[in-house]
Amino acid sequence: MDRIVDLIRSKRDGGELDLEDFERLINGYTLGEIVDAQMGALLMAGVCNGFSDSEAASLTSAMLRCGERLDLSQLDKMRVDCYSTGGVGDKTPLIAAPIAAAAGVAVPMIVERGTGHVIGALDKLHAIPGFRTELEVADFSDLVTEYGLAFAEQSNSLAPADKRLYELRDETATVESLALIAASAMSKKLAEDLNGLIVDVKVCRGSLVSGRTEARRLAQQMISIGRRLDVKVQALLTDMDQPLGFTVGNALEIMEVSQTLQGQGPPDVAGLAIEMAARMIFLADTTISIESARDKANSTIEDGSAMAALGNVIAAQGGDAKGLQDFERLPNPQGALPVMSPRDGYVSRISAEDIGRAAVLLGAGRTNPDDELDPAVGVVLEAKVGQQVLNGTRLCALYYNDEANLEEAQHLVEDAFRISALEPEQRDLVLDLIQG
Amino acid sequence: MDRIVDLIRSKRDGGELDLEDFERLINGYTLGEIVDAQMGALLMAGVCNGFSDSEAASLTSAMLRCGERLDLSQLDKMRVDCYSTGGVGDKTPLIAAPIAAAAGVAVPMIVERGTGHVIGALDKLHAIPGFRTELEVADFSDLVTEYGLAFAEQSNSLAPADKRLYELRDETATVESLALIAASAMSKKLAEDLNGLIVDVKVCRGSLVSGRTEARRLAQQMISIGRRLDVKVQALLTDMDQPLGFTVGNALEIMEVSQTLQGQGPPDVAGLAIEMAARMIFLADTTISIESARDKANSTIEDGSAMAALGNVIAAQGGDAKGLQDFERLPNPQGALPVMSPRDGYVSRISAEDIGRAAVLLGAGRTNPDDELDPAVGVVLEAKVGQQVLNGTRLCALYYNDEANLEEAQHLVEDAFRISALEPEQRDLVLDLIQG
Repeated sequence: MDRIVDLIRSKRDGGELDLEDFERLINGYTLGEIVDAQMGALLMAGVCNGFSDSEAASLTSAMLRCGERLDLSQLDKMRVDCYSTGGVGDKTPLIAAPIAAAAGVAVPMIVERGTGHVIGALDKLHAIPGFRTELEVADFSDLVTEYGLAFAEQSNSLAPADKRLYELRDETATVESLALIAASAMSKKLAEDLNGLIVDVKVCRGSLVSGRTEARRLAQQMISIGRRLDVKVQALLTDMDQPLGFTVGNALEIMEVSQTLQGQGPPDVAGLAIEMAARMIFLADTTISIESARDKANSTIEDGSAMAALGNVIAAQGGDAKGLQDFERLPNPQGALPVMSPRDGYVSRISAEDIGRAAVLLGAGRTNPDDELDPAVGVVLEAKVGQQVLNGTRLCALYYNDEANLEEAQHLVEDAFRISALEPEQRDLVLDLIQG
Repeated sequence: MDRIVDLIRSKRDGGELDLEDFERLINGYTLGEIVDAQMGALLMAGVCNGFSDSEAASLTSAMLRCGERLDLSQLDKMRVDCYSTGGVGDKTPLIAAPIAAAAGVAVPMIVERGTGHVIGALDKLHAIPGFRTELEVADFSDLVTEYGLAFAEQSNSLAPADKRLYELRDETATVESLALIAASAMSKKLAEDLNGLIVDVKVCRGSLVSGRTEARRLAQQMISIGRRLDVKVQALLTDMDQPLGFTVGNALEIMEVSQTLQGQGPPDVAGLAIEMAARMIFLADTTISIESARDKANSTIEDGSAMAALGNVIAAQGGDAKGLQDFERLPNPQGALPVMSPRDGYVSRISAEDIGRAAVLLGAGRTNPDDELDPAVGVVLEAKVGQQVLNGTRLCALYYNDEANLEEAQHLVEDAFRISALEPEQRDLVLDLIQG
């Protein structure tokens, strides 16, 4: 007890904690020997005084060691995963993963529920009837070995400390710390026993890290943790000023995943997914060039092997893989409400945050942690930034089952679109690559 | 919930909270709507970024309003109390209070348990058989009205927020904040419905505020809170480099209180008690001079009225007032172990902290919050700083009932005394007076 107060005092007074300190903290917290008040105070002291790169790595390591961890060392493949800080309509990890798997990379992916206006990959996968992500560590490992790809959720054995810490940070205003964000993400990803990791840091309003400078710092923090813990990390900074692709919702996004894996996806989604997958392939085998990695990625779409890789693991995890081809087998909404352009002009902005909030209001995400999701509902864009529209042109449609929040969602969506007289400048989707 | 996280975030980012914010925090915490983790994080943000004078006053006010509060406005006397930051052997508030009461000042005193190596006034009073301090607010008020003096402990109605907050601060390394220390003390004292308060800030190693600069800042913080909340505060800075008086322990200190009120006390205790009482009398009636206030204080000892004031309220609160004259009626220890000087020389230092820790080890204080005290035991000094001693001269004696920690306590006491060849410089007991 006394020693814990001493640790908090040290961090309060600007001291630097070491690996042993963080292990005592994380283990003690998991065992209930360190109470919430102490962890809240310690995290706040760190947020106020800053955590060093070495502290971020030690914290990651302590969180990692506190839970179970895959052991894929017997596998004759390189293990590389991808991680996105989360964006509206961003289903690219679910596309990049099967592409990389089809190209011979092992991808053990821990998926998470969404928070705020962003829907999580875990929730999207659960829109596939029967799909289960509650896996024992051994089963997770077996699936990766057999299929080169598997999806598991956090549990009391897999990255348990992060789950409790995140809840605590959420209620103590200690979420917005780059070191804590990076440690949280890396502790989960490193539990996957990776050789490499591609990180996609979204640059947008309404993301955890909004500006480009902050996004770059987060990327560097994750790369630094990776370097200290022996995992190669590369990061893309990507634009999130409008939703990615056309669909925002659970089943709706799974449909777009399927279309993209069949070469029919929206250009932004397809482009980013290929780029992420190519970087994963390249990290797994640096003897090839990034151009040939891109070719490899594209060929897994052309020959159907990426689609097959996803279908196989969905079936293996209890899901209805036929839903990927026959969308009638996925949850479908009962009502659709179109939203039209109020004037002639160009779509100059679509607020990703407002579209995300509208989808959550319709039931695609959670307002409270215990809310039930409606996997069928969401928003489908029918115009994207740069497109010319006339007064009355359909901009998007709201898909719903319950009318309770429909009007509020409609207003949000109407406000999300900005129609201007001038054609907006084109922006690149991938803003930067950071290789550490 | 959301608004609380916003408040924490604001304090984290260097913002200033107002009275309404602090009321929401303190009331929410008392009601359990704000959880320990949130209060721990908020306090740490404040400790890292600092609390302004206005914030310290708002926090005090919020804590004050959260509990019940005496209403002595009908009383035709001025209400003035004294507060000491706590020192080893410091029984002066228990002497100054009856002196001031005998001189016509109303003294409603909330007393506390000790922490660490310092014994609290509450514990000392409980060494008097039968003495009760668990008072309803109405009874506390009635006693002050009838006797001009009463002693009550904190309860679920009297200063409840401070009690819970202190426990939280203790485990989250947020004790050492001058603003929080000042707000804690002032919220309790102001619940007494005072017109004035004399503060005694100890300057010593092992006190909450060790250096003279820090002590001065704490005094100024309390004066500033008083000014904003309409209570006149004056502060003495006093030296605590050796224990005050000869006795350290519960019944042992009550004996010295009695001796001092009968004009037979040690010069340091008597001098400081008279000075505090005179300042209390002066605050209650600023038309007189401080010199005549000192005369008034001294006369209450000479005519026995101060002793009578204490005896009457002890009896009224169920205590055996005869114990003040007949020490056999107080708890007495079974064993005594003298400690001798190892050489010829002068006593040049007596570590107050070590003597305090020795007394706690013997059972006079608590190592854990739930420990039972032994009211009889403690340490009695037989030499003070400046005194010339020979090899074998008695320096002090340990009074004990249980031999379990006796040897460890003995070593502490032996180490506490420094015997030097040169006579030490004399130091003033009262280092400074701060009038705001």
